[in-house]
Amino acid sequence: MTKAVLSALIRPMLEPHLPPSIDAHFFTSVEELHALAPEAEIGWFDLDDKEPMAEAVRLAENMKWFNSIYAGLDFLPLDLLHQRGTRITNGAGINAVAIAEYVVMGMLNIAKDYRTVVRAQEKHEWLMDSPGKLELVGTRALLLGYGAIGQQVKPRLEAFGVDVVPVRRSAADGALGPDEWRDQLGEFDWVILAVPATDETDGMIGADELAAMKDSAILVNVARGTVVDQEALIAALEAKSIGSALLDVTTPEPLPADNPLWTLDNAHVTMHLSGRAQASMFRRSAERFVKNLQAYVAGEPLHPVFDPVRGY
Amino acid sequence: MTKAVLSALIRPMLEPHLPPSIDAHFFTSVEELHALAPEAEIGWFDLDDKEPMAEAVRLAENMKWFNSIYAGLDFLPLDLLHQRGTRITNGAGINAVAIAEYVVMGMLNIAKDYRTVVRAQEKHEWLMDSPGKLELVGTRALLLGYGAIGQQVKPRLEAFGVDVVPVRRSAADGALGPDEWRDQLGEFDWVILAVPATDETDGMIGADELAAMKDSAILVNVARGTVVDQEALIAALEAKSIGSALLDVTTPEPLPADNPLWTLDNAHVTMHLSGRAQASMFRRSAERFVKNLQAYVAGEPLHPVFDPVRGY
Repeated sequence: MTKAVLSALIRPMLEPHLPPSIDAHFFTSVEELHALAPEAEIGWFDLDDKEPMAEAVRLAENMKWFNSIYAGLDFLPLDLLHQRGTRITNGAGINAVAIAEYVVMGMLNIAKDYRTVVRAQEKHEWLMDSPGKLELVGTRALLLGYGAIGQQVKPRLEAFGVDVVPVRRSAADGALGPDEWRDQLGEFDWVILAVPATDETDGMIGADELAAMKDSAILVNVARGTVVDQEALIAALEAKSIGSALLDVTTPEPLPADNPLWTLDNAHVTMHLSGRAQASMFRRSAERFVKNLQAYVAGEPLHPVFDPVRGY
Repeated sequence: MTKAVLSALIRPMLEPHLPPSIDAHFFTSVEELHALAPEAEIGWFDLDDKEPMAEAVRLAENMKWFNSIYAGLDFLPLDLLHQRGTRITNGAGINAVAIAEYVVMGMLNIAKDYRTVVRAQEKHEWLMDSPGKLELVGTRALLLGYGAIGQQVKPRLEAFGVDVVPVRRSAADGALGPDEWRDQLGEFDWVILAVPATDETDGMIGADELAAMKDSAILVNVARGTVVDQEALIAALEAKSIGSALLDVTTPEPLPADNPLWTLDNAHVTMHLSGRAQASMFRRSAERFVKNLQAYVAGEPLHPVFDPVRGY
């Protein structure tokens, strides 16, 4: 029997589909998880609190396969997992559709200044003209990161007549390579960040990149707060050297109540909600895990594999 | 020489392109318009106030071609124009792209309950979960009206994985006919109104149609307020017998400050701004008028022709 330690939250979706060789233990508390972890061959340890989740990983010395609903796993002891040779599957793409929908919503809201319309309704005030007059049609978007999220964003924006230029590790099929996009920053109306959180992407948008953008450019960040130099961004927004920013992610999270991003007219803070704006993530994640369980038992490859060295 | 009476607002865009046989007079006030109208062979009489614009049409006894930037012309003496045989071109489709963008924005905002996110940012409050969790993907939309606006809405929603079923005068190509949609109302997550304002469409969504919708259905009206029985809609929203409504149009406009639609949690009032949320309408309209002027001079057909009997 293969011992699997799994969150009880997902039990109703998994139990009917477990292969007979799997001996599943469902934890209902951090204490139970930490007690069960050392014996787990398979672990799905997701908790809202990341530190006890990392601790469970440290305790799981015999774990051969670790699964998570999260896409970004930089809060885990990845070196250790790599050393141990643990196979890792993550939640990459599980909520990509929801995030892509949120990205387009946020872009349209900024284009039309919908926030002002919301406030006008609260005051029962009939606006005689639209506070925002930008049309998406005919605009150009630089899409940094062409993974699961980027691939969902692109066709949606293209349906609006947006010219979307992705950045990929290797330039091809109309995509820019990692060394090409900086020189062209000034040509885009939108700069959309959907890169994984890695050493390479850390701080990739700093003062220089912000200065190179159009003064009307709109920055959209659905990656990680750390991808952007937040102090430089605040300065650019205050100086209006870029148009505005849609920030689904910030540094830190939650954003402290006294951070200037809350009050800046051209900052739109969406509290890392983009991926949560759906009700199908657990179902999709469970379905994927069941498929992977069957593959694991059959000795077949798992999908999607997370590489602890690359970090995505 | 052919005498044309045109709004001075559009003068800079028209003057460089006028055919030599056109004797253009630009009015800068209602008084000038009313003085010039009786001699106009061609008239472009647009004013913000509709009654003096209608009066100018009444005065224009010799007008052979009337043009307007507006799509809906039901406020004009259409019988008179029909009697006189005046050719009419309107603004159909001029702002269809902007309206389609607004429709998708509004649908996403309701799906994700973005209004609550806006209010949270105002309070510097980091929401831990999305107040709205609907994904567009996999939902079904009934699209009543498949003219310029409907044709722009459909591909945008389809890029989100929405199954869009248009209603046309003749059922074909996956569209429903005018007698087929009522029976199927209960099968749609979205009911989008983009029909022209005519006797046929007046009140087409009443208490019966609202009762036939899903209790989660979202009604989107970018047609005319009068297409919906507004009292029945308010009752349905209050009773939550439908999910919510995105109302770009209301009866009357502006909506009086004491109308319950302003305060209903599930009513989103957007003040007829959808078509105004762009900066290209005047340019597009001028370009279209110049093309039509050349066609008029050459004795060729004009586009798009508005039929005063049909009303669109």
